[in-house]
Amino acid sequence: MPSDAANLSYYLVRPDPDDERLSSVVIGLDQAGRTVETRVIHEKPLTLYLNAQEIVTMMTIGDHPEELAIGYLLNQGMLKPGDEVTGVDVDDELDVVVVRTGHRTNFENKLKKRTQTSGCAQGTAFGDLMDVIEGVTLPAAAVKTSWLYALTHKINTTPSLYLEAGAIHGCVLCEADRPLVYMEDVGRHNAIDKIAGYMFRHGVGAADKIFYTTGRLTSEMVIKTVRMGIPVLVSRSGFTAWGVELARKAGLTLIGRARGKRFLALAGAERIVFDQDLGFVEDESVRSRRKGAGGDE
Amino acid sequence: MPSDAANLSYYLVRPDPDDERLSSVVIGLDQAGRTVETRVIHEKPLTLYLNAQEIVTMMTIGDHPEELAIGYLLNQGMLKPGDEVTGVDVDDELDVVVVRTGHRTNFENKLKKRTQTSGCAQGTAFGDLMDVIEGVTLPAAAVKTSWLYALTHKINTTPSLYLEAGAIHGCVLCEADRPLVYMEDVGRHNAIDKIAGYMFRHGVGAADKIFYTTGRLTSEMVIKTVRMGIPVLVSRSGFTAWGVELARKAGLTLIGRARGKRFLALAGAERIVFDQDLGFVEDESVRSRRKGAGGDE
Repeated sequence: MPSDAANLSYYLVRPDPDDERLSSVVIGLDQAGRTVETRVIHEKPLTLYLNAQEIVTMMTIGDHPEELAIGYLLNQGMLKPGDEVTGVDVDDELDVVVVRTGHRTNFENKLKKRTQTSGCAQGTAFGDLMDVIEGVTLPAAAVKTSWLYALTHKINTTPSLYLEAGAIHGCVLCEADRPLVYMEDVGRHNAIDKIAGYMFRHGVGAADKIFYTTGRLTSEMVIKTVRMGIPVLVSRSGFTAWGVELARKAGLTLIGRARGKRFLALAGAERIVFDQDLGFVEDESVRSRRKGAGGDE
Repeated sequence: MPSDAANLSYYLVRPDPDDERLSSVVIGLDQAGRTVETRVIHEKPLTLYLNAQEIVTMMTIGDHPEELAIGYLLNQGMLKPGDEVTGVDVDDELDVVVVRTGHRTNFENKLKKRTQTSGCAQGTAFGDLMDVIEGVTLPAAAVKTSWLYALTHKINTTPSLYLEAGAIHGCVLCEADRPLVYMEDVGRHNAIDKIAGYMFRHGVGAADKIFYTTGRLTSEMVIKTVRMGIPVLVSRSGFTAWGVELARKAGLTLIGRARGKRFLALAGAERIVFDQDLGFVEDESVRSRRKGAGGDE
């Protein structure tokens, strides 16, 4: 399905599959023993410093390192929404990014409380992430089913590294039926962090947004979405029980298995406005269906 | 497609989708606003100790904690294949597993070299994981294309949590055309670790095995497979560039995008014997196709 230039005009940021730093061509053999060329995505280490403190080394495709760095710190609670970032320096040679703040943050004890999280999780979540869920009040926004169908169609037909090379996750910040910021990375945790970083750097509000992800709706995805203050989380993939439980506790609208005509809401369904005449929704075309399927649906 | 009892008889271990501890039924709304019941998988924390040392807290579905614990330690190089494990104690109340060895291991400096890895990676890989790739010599086993088609058919039709609830990864240790050990977990890193633990505990050799995974062929999956000494890694999902590079360096046969008739070998193709008449291979049925697709193909 060709991409629609009018749809692409909505984007503030979208994937650049032509960026040669992000993927490369390799040669292999197919099932009949024929030589074929294919494109595979890059992953490289990026070490994050907050001021003088080394925080973590992430594996990333390498685009938007500033947004990734800030978003990581925000989603780990090591940077607060009100904090002032005085600079972000990227050293491409050393694969290092340094985030500088006006004050010092006391996060070292948090570093001791690492928990490995599930699925394509980023592997470290800090013990106090759960605090985010308690007592949060997410905005009472509405989400129309017609928006969901429009969004998935637009996202699936947007040129992307996924369509070029596969084996990558995408996250998209949306408003009503418009995708605004589409980030990709090898792990969906990086993609969501890049969006959090973009929102912080550009002062983008969360209350009227919808967050779309290709990845599973695990506890970690729910916690990050709640932390970002976004009331609606949508995925083409499935759920984990804990993700559902946390979403219900936080009052987050959690919509999964959104493919073609179908979707399933397992939390916060009161925000959904069923305005779409389902007779007019096509099932997914072969082209817009995401290739294959990991367990990470 | 019904599962074939004759195929299931090959298994030493296979998923138990009827285990009530692993998933639960939740109620939600579908796209037409109808109330529906669905099944979602559990994820719970499991804290691993090696002797008196706390190592990590993992998120897991919770089955096979002994295999997961030992496999984790092996795949991180914190336990060597020749080490003696004197006991593995699981405390279901505390969600703790303790692996006891006859001697003490010096892994504390490794704990300082955490690297977050990509995709559904387990988040911590140690700095010396790369050492595994250098100088390794994997066995010169053959892999027949007829085996690949037989394996994927058998695996896709085996009763599993994936077929029941989705949103889960699977890894399968195979020999020729027979799946032997099929483990599932929220992260594929846990599934592969459970298989490594099973092989260690039961003295299963690696030289004639094929490793199948539903997840992407990232650097981490390649490193773990090489560390386990298995010469062939197959996935229905895609590749990352670094995964391909490491597989080529290690001499690992790396076969991805194995779905229906198609597959693609990007490393170690010299082990492949093209014996399958492709006219007799059916494309994937809707039933055996894995649902949807994350970026984690």
